[in-house]
Amino acid sequence: MATVKLWTDEDVARDPAVKAVFDDIRTTRKSDFVNDFWRGLAHDAGTLKRVWEGLKAIMIAPGALDPLTCELIYIAVSITNGCQYCIHSHTAAARAKGMTDGQHGHMLAIVGMANQTNALVTGLGVAPDDVFLVR
Amino acid sequence: MATVKLWTDEDVARDPAVKAVFDDIRTTRKSDFVNDFWRGLAHDAGTLKRVWEGLKAIMIAPGALDPLTCELIYIAVSITNGCQYCIHSHTAAARAKGMTDGQHGHMLAIVGMANQTNALVTGLGVAPDDVFLVR
Amino acid sequence: MATVKLWTDEDVARDPAVKAVFDDIRTTRKSDFVNDFWRGLAHDAGTLKRVWEGLKAIMIAPGALDPLTCELIYIAVSITNGCQYCIHSHTAAARAKGMTDGQHGHMLAIVGMANQTNALVTGLGVAPDDVFLVR
Amino acid sequence: MATVKLWTDEDVARDPAVKAVFDDIRTTRKSDFVNDFWRGLAHDAGTLKRVWEGLKAIMIAPGALDPLTCELIYIAVSITNGCQYCIHSHTAAARAKGMTDGQHGHMLAIVGMANQTNALVTGLGVAPDDVFLVR
Amino acid sequence: MATVKLWTDEDVARDPAVKAVFDDIRTTRKSDFVNDFWRGLAHDAGTLKRVWEGLKAIMIAPGALDPLTCELIYIAVSITNGCQYCIHSHTAAARAKGMTDGQHGHMLAIVGMANQTNALVTGLGVAPDDVFLVR
Amino acid sequence: MATVKLWTDEDVARDPAVKAVFDDIRTTRKSDFVNDFWRGLAHDAGTLKRVWEGLKAIMIAPGALDPLTCELIYIAVSITNGCQYCIHSHTAAARAKGMTDGQHGHMLAIVGMANQTNALVTGLGVAPDDVFLVR
Repeated sequence: MATVKLWTDEDVARDPAVKAVFDDIRTTRKSDFVNDFWRGLAHDAGTLKRVWEGLKAIMIAPGALDPLTCELIYIAVSITNGCQYCIHSHTAAARAKGMTDGQHGHMLAIVGMANQTNALVTGLGVAPDDVFLVR
Repeated sequence: MATVKLWTDEDVARDPAVKAVFDDIRTTRKSDFVNDFWRGLAHDAGTLKRVWEGLKAIMIAPGALDPLTCELIYIAVSITNGCQYCIHSHTAAARAKGMTDGQHGHMLAIVGMANQTNALVTGLGVAPDDVFLVR
Repeated sequence: MATVKLWTDEDVARDPAVKAVFDDIRTTRKSDFVNDFWRGLAHDAGTLKRVWEGLKAIMIAPGALDPLTCELIYIAVSITNGCQYCIHSHTAAARAKGMTDGQHGHMLAIVGMANQTNALVTGLGVAPDDVFLVR
Repeated sequence: MATVKLWTDEDVARDPAVKAVFDDIRTTRKSDFVNDFWRGLAHDAGTLKRVWEGLKAIMIAPGALDPLTCELIYIAVSITNGCQYCIHSHTAAARAKGMTDGQHGHMLAIVGMANQTNALVTGLGVAPDDVFLVR
Repeated sequence: MATVKLWTDEDVARDPAVKAVFDDIRTTRKSDFVNDFWRGLAHDAGTLKRVWEGLKAIMIAPGALDPLTCELIYIAVSITNGCQYCIHSHTAAARAKGMTDGQHGHMLAIVGMANQTNALVTGLGVAPDDVFLVR
Repeated sequence: MATVKLWTDEDVARDPAVKAVFDDIRTTRKSDFVNDFWRGLAHDAGTLKRVWEGLKAIMIAPGALDPLTCELIYIAVSITNGCQYCIHSHTAAARAKGMTDGQHGHMLAIVGMANQTNALVTGLGVAPDDVFLVR
């Protein structure tokens, strides 16, 4: 599937704004491979640049959370949204950052449990206890 | 709100199966406080016991992921599902386990970014690259 | 909250198209009470009529599923979407149609379990087995 | 995939209620092509008729919003629900109604941004400001 | 797709904890066939056992709701989450438990209607009527 | 509720990075009022700046879609995610940009219908017709 044509490297080469982002992706990741998400996003150079720079700031630059934890959180969101692209790409990224099978299984168990208790408490219609509120 | 009456400690005392779970919650957490989720779930002793034991195994027993990382993943799912009860209770739990404001902000930024890129790749309809698939 | 003003009976009386639907709701349900969903929807007589007639055909007219089963399915969807209005109104409707506490608890347990396994299988990225496909 | 057999034109010809809807789809759209959504829905003539007439009233009959804006809103919902069928069919419909690549990209950017800020504000647990409420 | 390798019977035979669950699945269901969800979950024997025992208690053991109603509720959740695996497997299970085409169509109509009214009432921002609240 | 303390103007005045964003919000919107979303986000100056600049580029700067259409798309996403904050703030913003009651009602009808057909086609498990795919 795909609702747009994915840009080849030839297409990218013809658009300097897109090429600048692709070059930065390649340099930052130290890899020539650019995955299809960016090739679909290339139709809109502004969004491409904004999303890439946001991802770089949040997922690649040093932050309060370590890189593997960042990937686990990303996968948890992607599973809950049912986004197979992001589940697959970020599971691969997590493995590349050292995720063990045990950590993968633990994360999946938490995501399953959270989805279960989210549903239960929502069905019960219970409001947060006072003690959980920030004043 | 609430679609059921929340059980008071007096209600709990009258049902041995429910009381056994509440006792275990108090012992395990080393606290007399039992939050309202469990008081809503008390109507169904079987589900109460099953969910508590699942949570204990996944979120409290030692596992492949450390306790704070578990909470961050739990919050990420709860935000994506829009479950205010679990967002509030697990944000409080994460703080009790040492989450700093910086880690909270980083987690929120990742959850926001993942929701954004999930939507973008879904709207583009892009399938996972071959390289991400497990054979 | 509310993004629109809810129509009072006086407002309704001034708009014959809206009044006709409100009259039919009251006659069909054999009750003078009209809940706030319809008072919010009254701003758009076309949607009001279309939605009411759809609901009447699916949830009130005799069908392949009995009325209580219909309500349980409705609640299951509403929980999964996190819609507190529909959770509360349809839990009340299910009780009025004879839902026992045991049935309520069983339904909640299924909804929790389904949300859990939906997440697990989505995170695993497993495709439906051939045997489940309709040819 | 598919959980039901899709009706061929021969199947349709044998059921007058279904055929009447298919005829109206063809006449209204001025095209002989009927897409697979309707062929799946054909198992239930009542739902088929109700959904088609609702769609015709909302998406085809003249309304307060122009046809292209209607399609953009439809796509935004479908992306957020992760419904690839509707994303693909309504992206095609939007293009047929004149959607430019620039408008497609702008819509995608908004959908991504809204999903991001929905998550952020939900994670912060912030209630709507008083000034946004309708009294 | 799949983010993990699916376990074959040979893999299962090498892990006694996993084999015990697979044996129980086969005995309980009186069938040698074990579907791919369990083969993906086999990587984590603890989650495998916990989820199977939960499902057995909720979906197979006698409960307040009959087995077909349980499946309909399960499908309703799975559709709302967009989980094709569970939609396909539980639609097949419902048919095996006697679901007629009429019941399937009725369930789908309810799920569609509930998703529609969930969205409408959410967009209107209407709070549950007092009469729906449990005191 | 709220999982963080909302920043007052006094808090903002003490942090130059946050103050710079708040000043730009006030200048750009030509209004002294800053809504609580930004006061919650102020804990993380990096995310605050990134989200505000993204919103300014997508929702305020001239683009391929007019400002009111942008707001309608934003509301459609927010309804589907059940985010009351964004539903209320963007419904107010849409009205400020000229949204009529008729346009509001039309948008809601489309969002309801799309959520309905998303569910129906997902439950039927129908794949996009070949004619909808981009090659």
